[in-house]
Amino acid sequence: MLEEIRQQPKALENTLRHELASANALRARLQRNKPKLIVLVARGTSDNAAQFGRYLLEITTGIQTSLAAPSIFTLYHTSVDFSNTLLVAISQSGESTDTNLVLQQARQAGALTVGITNEAGSAMAKLCEHLFLVRAGKEKSVAATKTYTGQLLMIYLLAYALGAPIKIEDLRRLPEWTSQALKLEKDIAERAERFRFMDHAVVVGRGLNYSNAFEFALKLMETCYVVAERFSSADLLHGPIAMVEPELPVFLFAPGGVTWSGQHSLMQRLWQAKAEVTVITDQSNPLALKALDGHKLSHCISVPAKLTQKGRAPVELYTPIPYIVPAQLLAASLAEIKGLDPDRPRSLNKVTRTL
Amino acid sequence: MLEEIRQQPKALENTLRHELASANALRARLQRNKPKLIVLVARGTSDNAAQFGRYLLEITTGIQTSLAAPSIFTLYHTSVDFSNTLLVAISQSGESTDTNLVLQQARQAGALTVGITNEAGSAMAKLCEHLFLVRAGKEKSVAATKTYTGQLLMIYLLAYALGAPIKIEDLRRLPEWTSQALKLEKDIAERAERFRFMDHAVVVGRGLNYSNAFEFALKLMETCYVVAERFSSADLLHGPIAMVEPELPVFLFAPGGVTWSGQHSLMQRLWQAKAEVTVITDQSNPLALKALDGHKLSHCISVPAKLTQKGRAPVELYTPIPYIVPAQLLAASLAEIKGLDPDRPRSLNKVTRTL
Repeated sequence: MLEEIRQQPKALENTLRHELASANALRARLQRNKPKLIVLVARGTSDNAAQFGRYLLEITTGIQTSLAAPSIFTLYHTSVDFSNTLLVAISQSGESTDTNLVLQQARQAGALTVGITNEAGSAMAKLCEHLFLVRAGKEKSVAATKTYTGQLLMIYLLAYALGAPIKIEDLRRLPEWTSQALKLEKDIAERAERFRFMDHAVVVGRGLNYSNAFEFALKLMETCYVVAERFSSADLLHGPIAMVEPELPVFLFAPGGVTWSGQHSLMQRLWQAKAEVTVITDQSNPLALKALDGHKLSHCISVPAKLTQKGRAPVELYTPIPYIVPAQLLAASLAEIKGLDPDRPRSLNKVTRTL
Repeated sequence: MLEEIRQQPKALENTLRHELASANALRARLQRNKPKLIVLVARGTSDNAAQFGRYLLEITTGIQTSLAAPSIFTLYHTSVDFSNTLLVAISQSGESTDTNLVLQQARQAGALTVGITNEAGSAMAKLCEHLFLVRAGKEKSVAATKTYTGQLLMIYLLAYALGAPIKIEDLRRLPEWTSQALKLEKDIAERAERFRFMDHAVVVGRGLNYSNAFEFALKLMETCYVVAERFSSADLLHGPIAMVEPELPVFLFAPGGVTWSGQHSLMQRLWQAKAEVTVITDQSNPLALKALDGHKLSHCISVPAKLTQKGRAPVELYTPIPYIVPAQLLAASLAEIKGLDPDRPRSLNKVTRTL
């Protein structure tokens, strides 16, 4: 797992170099005919990437974007209207039974289909009309890392193809920003000791980083066997905040930009409840570090780069990929500290088939 | 809370009697012009009702149905396309700031709007075009119960208005089925003792009962301060299953019909991991009781009624309202056993305002 986490800058660079042409082909096609609706379908880590797409695509294109509920197709066999719809299927292996079934039905029902997968020879690659191939190299660890960030990159390219204000020269900086995040490795390995006996935790993200809350929680669940909840800051305040006990470990993604103020208010509430807060941020948001002043039981993990962008899109647009890196590192270190093998968690196989 | 749980049959009856006219008015209007897309927006318990709508409406109408991400409007201020869209806003108080903001923007952008609320004089009631008024009477407990089932009833009426195979005479049986579920009160109060020291738990639902997994988990979090995860059976298998330790309490909604087979397979996996499984089902699914044979640490809570329906819709169509009742009863009893006041959980107010 750790080795694959380290491969991410190269994997991203390789994927971007080869796949820009696919994005441009789709862009040309979509210029004549934009979809009315975008539907994403996936499971597991790929579903967390889909969650990112649900936000990024709707925020940057204004097109309604939805996450499919696979059981509606696989169990209830509903015939759903897919006219004027872009269906985006995501699967590392390309062999997820339910994801492929939705992809197939959507295509038959007239949807334009995009498949995002790591495997060029997979069923998904054959079923979709436009293939976006994640070129991360074989992922051996059951816990997905480099394919998750590869999928996020593909979703940026998809937004670009849909006419979003995404600049290719900014995407070209992502491998370097990811390298900067990897510099935290030693620091995080030391920090992980503290969580040796953590048996439950809460992860909070918002907007473009909401999917990272799901992904970090999933890594904690599958590699460290921690019962990890994931919420948006708003959802946490609508009820679950009551369960926050003194010492509850809360991890919080906190970039600058429009989500900062809500994350900051939530931090105050968490401190009132005496929770232990770990904030993941970057050098462009000095307010995060300042907010921690005087809170001895709280910590800041700051990616050593300024991740702000200056275009029309949200300022924190490019934080999700660099921000998940310290979370991946923490999960990998914690698994090691607990004597667990993150590459082969109990009860799991690399390819999960569900209906 | 307990008193309000008991009021549910009357509240449902009252709501159905008075609101059928609103549903028929909307039905007449929609006959000429069906929406292309349904978007639901809500927070907290109302968001769990929205989750039910996300499944029920898409399954029974074939119209694409999506849950709104409020931050896209409240924080990112994206201008999203709402043409040919039915926007359904849900809020007990009708005063949820973010929900109302999405409702307002959607209406301005041309969406047909429905508001589902308990308060006729609320901001939501004024903002929406079609008001579906939950007539459950004032809800005093911070933990919502009778407004949740009232909201589910409204969503059935909405599906009916959209031409779904929902029979009004079946909806008229819901109060009686809910009364049957309430007969479990004494049994559940005794059963709750067992969970006195539970500090985390997992709740699993699928399809039409997926929202109940969210709602039961929310009740456990806000009234009993239990860290409660919620998953579909498929999502649990895609990673989180690894965290299942011996003795982990898992609660599982298991009606008959298309979701049973997956729930049953999951139970086997949970037993392999030595988890303690509590199944919520009804008399129409004897397979659930049979599956528990020989599993001493597992329990069955069976609503004493046959909840199968025989129309074109899924057989378990009417299970969600009766099934949430034992879950509500368990949360209320457990809170009492733990010495907590479920009507006034720490850190919470009845109306939560977030952006």
